[in-house]
Amino acid sequence: MKLKNLVSSTLLAAVGIACTATLAQQAAKPEQLIKWRQSAFQVIGWNSGRIKASLDGTYNKEDVVKAAHTLAAVANSGLGSLFALGTDTGKGWHDTTAKPAVFSDSARFNELSANFAKEASELAAVAQNGDAAAVKGQYAKLTRTCKTCHDDFRTAN
Amino acid sequence: MKLKNLVSSTLLAAVGIACTATLAQQAAKPEQLIKWRQSAFQVIGWNSGRIKASLDGTYNKEDVVKAAHTLAAVANSGLGSLFALGTDTGKGWHDTTAKPAVFSDSARFNELSANFAKEASELAAVAQNGDAAAVKGQYAKLTRTCKTCHDDFRTAN
Repeated sequence: MKLKNLVSSTLLAAVGIACTATLAQQAAKPEQLIKWRQSAFQVIGWNSGRIKASLDGTYNKEDVVKAAHTLAAVANSGLGSLFALGTDTGKGWHDTTAKPAVFSDSARFNELSANFAKEASELAAVAQNGDAAAVKGQYAKLTRTCKTCHDDFRTAN
Repeated sequence: MKLKNLVSSTLLAAVGIACTATLAQQAAKPEQLIKWRQSAFQVIGWNSGRIKASLDGTYNKEDVVKAAHTLAAVANSGLGSLFALGTDTGKGWHDTTAKPAVFSDSARFNELSANFAKEASELAAVAQNGDAAAVKGQYAKLTRTCKTCHDDFRTAN
């Protein structure tokens, strides 16, 4: 029994170190975690597209503010917890496009995620207080953080 | 030419009144709009679950604040634009679960959406400044707005 407890404790500790998932998320099945993260990135894509449409067409400040605020909230929501152990392969809405490096080089993945969250927060602030030109500049900074992370951590699809 | 322009203008005005979609979203295909809204509700479900897990288990203020903030942002993001004309039937990640009433009684749908957004914003404020008991009370108010809307506007699935 003691050995069994020790093994259980060690496993739990390893899970706790390797990912930042809450207990609720640890209880969720890999398929659900992958669905959630694929959904979060769809919401990011939707809102990124709204901002781009405003920059390319007629600038709609109210729409850009809403979109940037949503982007920032999702970017800062704790997406890393959805890349928990056991979700390196598998299917959510579709096969995961996460490269193995997400799990083998989590330090760099977390660093790039933090950059993305930082630039998204800055975009929300600029959208509220700045003009279209300022938003365009900050949006370009944000999309560079997307590309950098996708290059290293997402398979082409 | 004048008649054609008039017809085009009238059609555009009708679309503008019938939904709040931006030009970019009007350009998106129904399948994409349905994917985006299904994704948004998955993100809502993920974050609602995080708050419930904290209330049912060990309260984690940082996690609840992040989750409530994400919920509020998505609830206030302009989800109504994803229920655009032509998306009453069809498949995103799966067949839409929107009832025809979403499109035939958009006034009530918008009213219930606004209630949801209001209670989600209040939850974000309570999460930041209140204790677990206060969050529990406001979370119950929020989930009642979910249920009311689902009863009227979502098919059982």
